[in-house]
Amino acid sequence: MGHDLDDYCAANQPRFVDELVELLRIPSVSAQPAHAADVRRNAEHIAAAAQAVGFTTAEVVETPGHPAVYAERIVDPALPTVLIYGHHDVQPVDPLDEWVSPPFEPQVRDGKLYARGAVDDKGQVFMHLKAVEAHLRTRGELPLNLRLIVEGEEEIGSVHFEQLVESLRDRLVADVAVVSDTGIFARGVPSLTVGLRGLCGVEVHVRGPSLDLHSGVFGGAVQNPVEALARMLASLKDPATGRVTVPGFYDEVVPPTDEERAAYASLPFSEDEFRATAGGITQTVGEEGWTVLERRWVRPTLEINGIWGGYQGEGSKTIIPAHAGAKISCRLVPAQKPQVIAERVAFALRAAAPPGVTVEVVVKQGGNPVVTPSDHPAVRAAARAMAAVFGKEPVVIREGGSIPPVEVFQRVLGMQSVLVGVGLPDDQIHAPNEKFDLDHYAMGVRVLARLWDEIAEGVHEQPATV
Amino acid sequence: MGHDLDDYCAANQPRFVDELVELLRIPSVSAQPAHAADVRRNAEHIAAAAQAVGFTTAEVVETPGHPAVYAERIVDPALPTVLIYGHHDVQPVDPLDEWVSPPFEPQVRDGKLYARGAVDDKGQVFMHLKAVEAHLRTRGELPLNLRLIVEGEEEIGSVHFEQLVESLRDRLVADVAVVSDTGIFARGVPSLTVGLRGLCGVEVHVRGPSLDLHSGVFGGAVQNPVEALARMLASLKDPATGRVTVPGFYDEVVPPTDEERAAYASLPFSEDEFRATAGGITQTVGEEGWTVLERRWVRPTLEINGIWGGYQGEGSKTIIPAHAGAKISCRLVPAQKPQVIAERVAFALRAAAPPGVTVEVVVKQGGNPVVTPSDHPAVRAAARAMAAVFGKEPVVIREGGSIPPVEVFQRVLGMQSVLVGVGLPDDQIHAPNEKFDLDHYAMGVRVLARLWDEIAEGVHEQPATV
Repeated sequence: MGHDLDDYCAANQPRFVDELVELLRIPSVSAQPAHAADVRRNAEHIAAAAQAVGFTTAEVVETPGHPAVYAERIVDPALPTVLIYGHHDVQPVDPLDEWVSPPFEPQVRDGKLYARGAVDDKGQVFMHLKAVEAHLRTRGELPLNLRLIVEGEEEIGSVHFEQLVESLRDRLVADVAVVSDTGIFARGVPSLTVGLRGLCGVEVHVRGPSLDLHSGVFGGAVQNPVEALARMLASLKDPATGRVTVPGFYDEVVPPTDEERAAYASLPFSEDEFRATAGGITQTVGEEGWTVLERRWVRPTLEINGIWGGYQGEGSKTIIPAHAGAKISCRLVPAQKPQVIAERVAFALRAAAPPGVTVEVVVKQGGNPVVTPSDHPAVRAAARAMAAVFGKEPVVIREGGSIPPVEVFQRVLGMQSVLVGVGLPDDQIHAPNEKFDLDHYAMGVRVLARLWDEIAEGVHEQPATV
Repeated sequence: MGHDLDDYCAANQPRFVDELVELLRIPSVSAQPAHAADVRRNAEHIAAAAQAVGFTTAEVVETPGHPAVYAERIVDPALPTVLIYGHHDVQPVDPLDEWVSPPFEPQVRDGKLYARGAVDDKGQVFMHLKAVEAHLRTRGELPLNLRLIVEGEEEIGSVHFEQLVESLRDRLVADVAVVSDTGIFARGVPSLTVGLRGLCGVEVHVRGPSLDLHSGVFGGAVQNPVEALARMLASLKDPATGRVTVPGFYDEVVPPTDEERAAYASLPFSEDEFRATAGGITQTVGEEGWTVLERRWVRPTLEINGIWGGYQGEGSKTIIPAHAGAKISCRLVPAQKPQVIAERVAFALRAAAPPGVTVEVVVKQGGNPVVTPSDHPAVRAAARAMAAVFGKEPVVIREGGSIPPVEVFQRVLGMQSVLVGVGLPDDQIHAPNEKFDLDHYAMGVRVLARLWDEIAEGVHEQPATV
């Protein structure tokens, strides 16, 4: 199975690269209003490319922000249907002078294609188009139904994505989503991501005097809101164990299975490399009893994302500040609920407030953690497709971050996702000199082409649950 | 003694007010470059007024910033010499719409003169000029030598004052300084301020990753610099006792005498009024075992003046910030040394740093606490002058703040200061509707006129130590 597809891909790979290069020339930077027309042009380019490979419907879909692309090829309602997700916008390119070649003038060096968006996510969206092309040119038809949604605002927080999904709800009906916006664990270690952490957040405001006070005239008799806030924040975690001390914080946490822990422990994790990737930190820290991977994948965390209060300028201003504030967010794991955890954090903050200040805690909207069972037929299908192409069984892993579309698919559409990406940890996404290893690009097309066969096959085994 | 002066002052008081009103029309806001020419015009106005009342030298003195005024009347080198200090610049006037009458169109309402600078400090500088006028017009000569320095940068931190004093060192030789830039304890409670707290400061920087990290990808395994800083700051004070926990912080503190404590306890202090003045705080806090006045006057404190780190904008940014920082200052009492205390705070901060971050503490220049012994002849002379005018013995108090010129006089010139001011706590200095009670203005002129007699008399009792 799939040799015909592999042969087609191999024969056409140089053109696949040329076509991707054309797409990468469009500076679709969603964060910069000056590039709004480029983002639209980019959407039009992708819609045209989707139509060219054989999607029967392929159109630009408006949102209150940047446009998305929707396409579909419905072969037979009786066949399984997959919803493909990707995004066509890219990160800003600053600092520009660190790029070896200009970010929107793609260049191949040493088998790698350098350009902004090469792997995140234009290249991986293009893998899908080329996989469909391989099927249709080789066999004349797909073995399943495909729907494709490519948003234009992922790099600015998928701000209108939920609204988009609501409005396209009827056209997004599918058995499972395949999301290609991630990478594999390491070069030579193919992997499938089945879990993402959820998110919740609060903003805390500590208010003392109604105006900044002279620290000489008043200092010693007035509670300092910054000091109060520091004390409150410090109380949220036990420095000895690294555990969050918010009452009830861990109550709903579903621990990983022994099998999962064993699988994670078997991964080729390098503490040195991790520290280098993590901005050159001097050492890792974290919750007692868990490895670095576990702390990031299967344990919830609490982080202070920002803090402010009083005078931040040059020199000195000897005041007792009137106000201090902080932003806090938690990463959540199954089965924690964002609203519940945020309320518990808010309660703990209020309880830790010293006398002489008033505390306000604002709870923000959050997102649920998501985990697709690793025995889900689509996960198994993806594992077989990867194994065939990479010559090695993929490991089933999680990610510490949140991918809002995956959470939206689960919450709004009740649909589970499989994350099939072929990026590498050193691809420099969001940084200068982003690249896509062309071998991985080629393997990615083959993995996805095979995946449709595997899902179509798998459905005969377990039709009800695909 | 002094009836002739009182009579002259009473007869000329309306003119004293008119002349002050003219000075108050000049918007000498030192903080705003647009008013630089006004500050200069103001200095010229004061130099001319000093010459008009009888100072023999009266000139504008340049600094790298706003100009000062120097004047002198040296009667006889054998007589005691006093250096008068004041400032001619004023605070900005924002928020302008809260002023009942425009800040630079002085208006008398209900016996009070409303204008920016009315009491801080143009009015109190003018008291000195009118006191000299009273002596010279009544008796033809002063009973002592006077030097006058009026700076133009007090409201922006006396940035060039030390330099100015160094450059005028030979012309500032005097037995004692009289500083009129303060108020009395309360209406009907005349007071002399003999102590000011010193100041030292540090800025602390906590650095973790070299760049902001994704809190999902990295959260749980990386020390958060904001959390580290919060923990370090919280460790500096014991919340149960309100005491600073920095090792050695209190080692050199000279406690107040029982007499001082008894005197402070006898003052008409209202906790309610204090809380209202302190920006409407809900309750006072502070070091166990000391009253609110003592906490502000005779006990050292540690305050966080500002803090920053990570994302402070609208909405959320889910990062582990690369960096966090804070500004900390301590108010010092005799015999604490700014450099020593700052180094101890720096040491405590470094010692409290958790693993995974690096800490840098920058020690800033500080100022010594100053206390003029309450049995100093000039303090006793000032007490007699106040008692004669207010009809009540003044209480001898301290202030919690620092007045940089007083510290400069002590450190650079080895000269002690007596603070003779007649402002009231509700004069709204630095706020809209600043005012000077015209009765206090009149009494202030009389106090200062008498003070020169009292010092001249006192010197005969204790010539060596005046």
